[in-house]
Amino acid sequence: MSELTHFNTAGDAHMVDISAKADTDRTAVTEGFIEMSAATLQRVMNGDNKKGDVLGIARIAGIMASKKTADLVPLCHPLPITHVDIKLEPDTQNNLIACQTTVTTLGKTGVEMEALNATQVALLTIYDMCKAVDRGMTIQGVRLLEKKGGKSGHWKREEP
Amino acid sequence: MSELTHFNTAGDAHMVDISAKADTDRTAVTEGFIEMSAATLQRVMNGDNKKGDVLGIARIAGIMASKKTADLVPLCHPLPITHVDIKLEPDTQNNLIACQTTVTTLGKTGVEMEALNATQVALLTIYDMCKAVDRGMTIQGVRLLEKKGGKSGHWKREEP
Amino acid sequence: MSELTHFNTAGDAHMVDISAKADTDRTAVTEGFIEMSAATLQRVMNGDNKKGDVLGIARIAGIMASKKTADLVPLCHPLPITHVDIKLEPDTQNNLIACQTTVTTLGKTGVEMEALNATQVALLTIYDMCKAVDRGMTIQGVRLLEKKGGKSGHWKREEP
Amino acid sequence: MSELTHFNTAGDAHMVDISAKADTDRTAVTEGFIEMSAATLQRVMNGDNKKGDVLGIARIAGIMASKKTADLVPLCHPLPITHVDIKLEPDTQNNLIACQTTVTTLGKTGVEMEALNATQVALLTIYDMCKAVDRGMTIQGVRLLEKKGGKSGHWKREEP
Amino acid sequence: MSELTHFNTAGDAHMVDISAKADTDRTAVTEGFIEMSAATLQRVMNGDNKKGDVLGIARIAGIMASKKTADLVPLCHPLPITHVDIKLEPDTQNNLIACQTTVTTLGKTGVEMEALNATQVALLTIYDMCKAVDRGMTIQGVRLLEKKGGKSGHWKREEP
Amino acid sequence: MSELTHFNTAGDAHMVDISAKADTDRTAVTEGFIEMSAATLQRVMNGDNKKGDVLGIARIAGIMASKKTADLVPLCHPLPITHVDIKLEPDTQNNLIACQTTVTTLGKTGVEMEALNATQVALLTIYDMCKAVDRGMTIQGVRLLEKKGGKSGHWKREEP
Repeated sequence: MSELTHFNTAGDAHMVDISAKADTDRTAVTEGFIEMSAATLQRVMNGDNKKGDVLGIARIAGIMASKKTADLVPLCHPLPITHVDIKLEPDTQNNLIACQTTVTTLGKTGVEMEALNATQVALLTIYDMCKAVDRGMTIQGVRLLEKKGGKSGHWKREEP
Repeated sequence: MSELTHFNTAGDAHMVDISAKADTDRTAVTEGFIEMSAATLQRVMNGDNKKGDVLGIARIAGIMASKKTADLVPLCHPLPITHVDIKLEPDTQNNLIACQTTVTTLGKTGVEMEALNATQVALLTIYDMCKAVDRGMTIQGVRLLEKKGGKSGHWKREEP
Repeated sequence: MSELTHFNTAGDAHMVDISAKADTDRTAVTEGFIEMSAATLQRVMNGDNKKGDVLGIARIAGIMASKKTADLVPLCHPLPITHVDIKLEPDTQNNLIACQTTVTTLGKTGVEMEALNATQVALLTIYDMCKAVDRGMTIQGVRLLEKKGGKSGHWKREEP
Repeated sequence: MSELTHFNTAGDAHMVDISAKADTDRTAVTEGFIEMSAATLQRVMNGDNKKGDVLGIARIAGIMASKKTADLVPLCHPLPITHVDIKLEPDTQNNLIACQTTVTTLGKTGVEMEALNATQVALLTIYDMCKAVDRGMTIQGVRLLEKKGGKSGHWKREEP
Repeated sequence: MSELTHFNTAGDAHMVDISAKADTDRTAVTEGFIEMSAATLQRVMNGDNKKGDVLGIARIAGIMASKKTADLVPLCHPLPITHVDIKLEPDTQNNLIACQTTVTTLGKTGVEMEALNATQVALLTIYDMCKAVDRGMTIQGVRLLEKKGGKSGHWKREEP
Repeated sequence: MSELTHFNTAGDAHMVDISAKADTDRTAVTEGFIEMSAATLQRVMNGDNKKGDVLGIARIAGIMASKKTADLVPLCHPLPITHVDIKLEPDTQNNLIACQTTVTTLGKTGVEMEALNATQVALLTIYDMCKAVDRGMTIQGVRLLEKKGGKSGHWKREEP
């Protein structure tokens, strides 16, 4: 049965030793959502053409955050990210904005943490920009969708 | 009808001018959850007494993250935080760990963003430490519960 | 004759003592330019409505950089900025983009450095986004236009 | 005709995918200037032997800033810099200090941004240290001089 | 008997609540040493006049580090430092360099951590710059000498 | 006789050129101590099982600090660390806590600075958490124990 690898045999936290792992191409895809009132969502959508580009700013915040993941998550290895793409899609059916993030690197460990962090910070930035009109917004469903590369190979979330 | 205040009249983003606001005592309380398998939750709970203290590390990560909020969220004002407290409670009924964060400051603007960010990073750190055994964990329900101080006064989320 | 205040009487650098200074309202206005080819400027202007919003991203980069000034400039005091506004105006006459930044705080020292740094990083971000098509772009004329607050009072650059 | 590569086909900003690019030796050389009054320049030059070493401190600030470039410029890839050298030369003919920066790495993308950022921060630090005696100083001519490595090969600015 | 205040009644770490404390003038003075071979010390001293100014660079590193203390020490409050002064004195009798740091602020909590951190980073920077010739250098005696301000008043280390 | 390599032939600081060095496995082991009163040490030891886990928090602080070394030490190269392990052992004989840190990477230069910095910040965090009950604590004996990898090969401190 596999262990929580972030602790050594004494039970103390350490940064896991990845020295002996090969550099392979790594990709992680994550998603998350921010629920808001219909009125707030409408404002965000109206602002899309340069009269208050909430989604453009959230995207930049997410991309920049991906580069700080090892600064925020204590036992995370620093990684030279080679690609970040963040999609932010308003969904008027469900009164939410969906965020999907893809991160890649060539490295010794995966980029799930970078993709999850980028997703969270993009959604948090939407919260920040809309909070004056809607304090009740809620961030939901932040999770890994797919992961490629490394010893564990290809993992994909089963539907639903 | 109130505006998205993070944009000036030209529709361009700016850091909102708070120069004229008074320093008042501010508090924000936020919550969030991370859902995981029963087996993963059990491991986290077993580790509680120094054989792999996942929650202790997540708490530290959240506290440290609260201090970097203005670094992550583009239009957020830098604020000298005066108190951070993060509660992490395992819930074996629902197979999740609940996070509740309280942040206070004496300042010209609120600390919701600091509390939400601390909550997200604490939960993300749990994800990091358990991901080797459970990739499917999901972060849910990150939201503001209560807010005191400033012109808008006391706000409390109504029970659903 | 006034001294270079960043050195003590032994000639060693120090962070100047501002403990005894009063908190006053401070404003600094700075400007700077990036010269580019007419074709590059046209691309930037075409992109303005969400098909590649170079100026929107540069503005965010500048605002975020203003918060890191004390991290970059060794003897700069950390300051809680209360307002940042960055104007970026294409000028097809002179084939350049002009940047004008206003920063305010309530504090013991001025915000010139924050405004100059924001201006430089906004222009540098334009360089980054356009460098694939125009390596020769040049940043020019980064300077203080106006400064209010503090013992030295109101200073304004004389024309031209 | 080449595109602004920092936007995907939807016009949204992304961090460009460099996963498939080879690691090659990269060098970038940049320059920039800070103009000041003759009296200010004289003070800086007098301080050169440890009674207020403005240029030594500016050099350190520039070197340190080169390591933070990906933190400041939103779509910039993080890169492990292998060498930074900054020359700062007073020019009493033209009442300015010239800065020339060389940065190298072995990587998938170039180091122009790192060299330009180091140049800007070195000059900004000179501004900071001399601003008490000369508010009118102006940063000029920050630009790329030469670039080696990568698919685009050797580029050199044509005179003048 | 006084408690370890960084833990709440449940034994969990928190950032101590200082909201109700008054802003008072605070000063901390700390010291530390780096022992090295006589030959290494001689090199450092020879370099003093701009042919390799080890001490000037260490001083800047210490000042900059003081501003990052809350970033490094998990439960440390962020504080707006108003003054930092670092003295570095070679001692050929004992083959060491002594570092003494003074930090001040006007705030709700003390600046011991800022002064200790500045001292440690200044000494660590000397190690970095001399390690190619002397790997055996040792940092010793990093401690608080004096502390003023706040509820606990004036504290001074008793000799020796 | 070897030179202080952090200065070029003009005596100016630079980040040493390591472009031509090969990537090799690197390990550094460092140690350091914090002396405290017997009563303080007893409190730290009592807290070990989740009623105030000083050592667990210090360990996390040290690991996180290792990732910021190039941010703190001006001429230090950024390095992708692959492993960090920090041992913190109370010693009731000598009234101190001993810290031993091991850092590894695959890179062009060594990881002594990362290990020394992690050691210092771990000890500083213990100071922070205990300072309310013992201001006199002193950090001692921070030094390199062993170093492997690179052109200089294996180095080990001679006893005592």
